[in-house]
Amino acid sequence: MNKKYAIGIDLGGTNLRVALVTRDGEIIRKMKEPTSEKILDSIFRIAGSLFSDEIAGIGLGVAGLVDREGGRIVISPNLPAVEGINLVNEMREKFRVPVFIENDANAAALGEKWIGAGKEFSNLVLFTLGTGIGGGIIQDKKLLNVAAEIGHMTINTDGEKCFCGNYGCLESYASARAMLSKLVSALEKGRESILKELCGGNFYKLTAEDIYRAALGGDSLARETLREAGRYLGIGIANIINVMSPEAIILAGGLTGAWDIYIQEAIKEASKRAFKELFGAVEIIPSLLGEDAGIIGSAGLVFENDPFEVIF
Amino acid sequence: MNKKYAIGIDLGGTNLRVALVTRDGEIIRKMKEPTSEKILDSIFRIAGSLFSDEIAGIGLGVAGLVDREGGRIVISPNLPAVEGINLVNEMREKFRVPVFIENDANAAALGEKWIGAGKEFSNLVLFTLGTGIGGGIIQDKKLLNVAAEIGHMTINTDGEKCFCGNYGCLESYASARAMLSKLVSALEKGRESILKELCGGNFYKLTAEDIYRAALGGDSLARETLREAGRYLGIGIANIINVMSPEAIILAGGLTGAWDIYIQEAIKEASKRAFKELFGAVEIIPSLLGEDAGIIGSAGLVFENDPFEVIF
Repeated sequence: MNKKYAIGIDLGGTNLRVALVTRDGEIIRKMKEPTSEKILDSIFRIAGSLFSDEIAGIGLGVAGLVDREGGRIVISPNLPAVEGINLVNEMREKFRVPVFIENDANAAALGEKWIGAGKEFSNLVLFTLGTGIGGGIIQDKKLLNVAAEIGHMTINTDGEKCFCGNYGCLESYASARAMLSKLVSALEKGRESILKELCGGNFYKLTAEDIYRAALGGDSLARETLREAGRYLGIGIANIINVMSPEAIILAGGLTGAWDIYIQEAIKEASKRAFKELFGAVEIIPSLLGEDAGIIGSAGLVFENDPFEVIF
Repeated sequence: MNKKYAIGIDLGGTNLRVALVTRDGEIIRKMKEPTSEKILDSIFRIAGSLFSDEIAGIGLGVAGLVDREGGRIVISPNLPAVEGINLVNEMREKFRVPVFIENDANAAALGEKWIGAGKEFSNLVLFTLGTGIGGGIIQDKKLLNVAAEIGHMTINTDGEKCFCGNYGCLESYASARAMLSKLVSALEKGRESILKELCGGNFYKLTAEDIYRAALGGDSLARETLREAGRYLGIGIANIINVMSPEAIILAGGLTGAWDIYIQEAIKEASKRAFKELFGAVEIIPSLLGEDAGIIGSAGLVFENDPFEVIF
C-alpha cells in the first residue's frame, strides 16, 4: 500500500523549511523558522510534529556539499552546525522510514522538474540566485548526481577572492552578496545614491531588494550595480549553455525579483557569448515554485526512490 | 544473430579515421587520410571498402555541433564541407544499417569509458587537448547527450577574442593554437629562444611538439608558454570539477605529450581552485586509447544502441 505523504526538509543558509507533501507534489502543511545553532533539534522536533503512519519517507535538501550515498553533510559554509553530521542515519534511526539527502539547489531543480517550471523539459539547469549562487541539473528527466556548484566556476582568472578560496568565481560577481559589497564600497567612497537615505546611513542594512527598488526609482548607482551583476550572470549562463546545452534554464531565488534589469542584462550577455545554435534552443524562464521548490523537491526524492511508483 | 562488427568513423578537424571494430572494442582494420573538400566521397568510399554482411551499424564522431536525433551536422568550423548535411540519413540509405552520430570528443569519451582509461569509472569527463579543446561527459556509465563544449567556457570575462565569437574562452588560452599564437608573437617581438633556429626563422612552421621539445631542452620561453597554458587548463578543469564532480578526468589529444610541464601545471592550478573535497575525489589521468578513442567510441555508439546487447 502506498503511503500518502513525504516530509520535505529544506535546510538553506538562512531558513529551515519543512513541509508535508503529497504524491502529487501538493503541500499540505508547511513550517518555517530561522536556522540557528540548535538546528538539529529544530529539524527533529518539526519533522516529529508532521510524522505519521502515512509518511513514505523523508527528503533533505541541504545547502552545501553532501555525500548522497553515505548520507553525510560534507561541508556547509553557512550551517557549520550540521557539517560532518550523518543526518540521514540519525533520521532513519529515529523515524524508521527511508531518508534521502541532496544539495538544496539540486532538490529545488527536482521540484521544478516535478511540478514546476521544468515540467515539460527533459534537460534543464536551475540557477539559485540569492546571497550565493547554486545550481541543479536535470538530464533525461532525472536529477544528475553531481555537485552543480555553478556559482564556483571561475569567470575571471585573476579576479576577486571568493569565500570558497578560489578567485574570480561567478558568485563573487553576480550574487546578492557581491552586489551589496560593491554597492557599499561605492557609497563609502561618497558616490551619490538614494540608497544613502534609504538605509539612514547604515549601508550594511541594505538588501538586494533595496537595490532593485532604487533602480526602479531611477537611481543610477543601483541600476549600474544590477546591470553589471547581470552581465556576469550572463557569462555563467553562457558557460552552462555551451557545456550542458539544456532545453531550459530556470532562474530561482530572491534576485529574480529584479528580472527586468538584472536578468534581462544576463540574457543579453548570454546571447552574445553562447553558441548561437545552443542559445537559440534554450528557454530562460523564472521558477514557478519560488521558495517552495526546495521542500517539494526534497519530498520528491522520496517518491522518486520509492519502488512502488514512478512519478516522472 | 548478432553481427560481429561496427564501422567507427572519426571526422576530426584534420584527419578522417575509419575502423572496423569488434563487439569487444578491438580494431580489426584501420584507415586514415587527411580531410579535404571531398571528404564526403572519402567517407563513402572507405566505409564501402569495409562494409559486409557482418556490419551491425555505423557510428560517426564529427568535430562540431551535431543534432543527434535529426542526424544533421549543425556547425563544424573546421569542416565546412559537411555543415548542414544529414550524413546519418545519407549513410542509412546507402548502407541500410543503423547509423549514429555524435560530436567527436563525445565519441572519444565513450571509447575511453568502454575499453580505455575510463573503464572503471561511472562518472568521468574527457578533455581533448589539441588545436582546440573539446570534451565529453559520461554520467552513470552513459554518454550525456550534451554539447560539452568545455573549450568555450569563459574563464576571462574581458579576455581574448575566440574564433567562436565569444571572449575569454578556455580554448583561447590553453589550446595548441593559443600557445603557438602567443609564442609567435613573443618571437616576433625579438624574444630569445632556441625555437628561432629550430624553425629556420619561419615561426608559422612551429608545432606544439616543438614547444615541448624546446622546453625539455631548457628553453625558457617554451617553458613559460607551456606553464601559462597549463595554468589556464587547470582553471577549466577546476570549473568542471565544481560543476560535474566526476570520479575521473581523462586528458586526451596531442598536448598530453607535454604532461610533465603543461598537465602538471594544470593539476596544480586545479588543486588550488576546485572545492578541496571534490578535487580529492577525482583522478586526473591520461587517455589510454590515444588517437583511436574516437573511432572506437563511434563504433561503440552502434553497440550501445543495439537492442541485442548491453556492452557497458
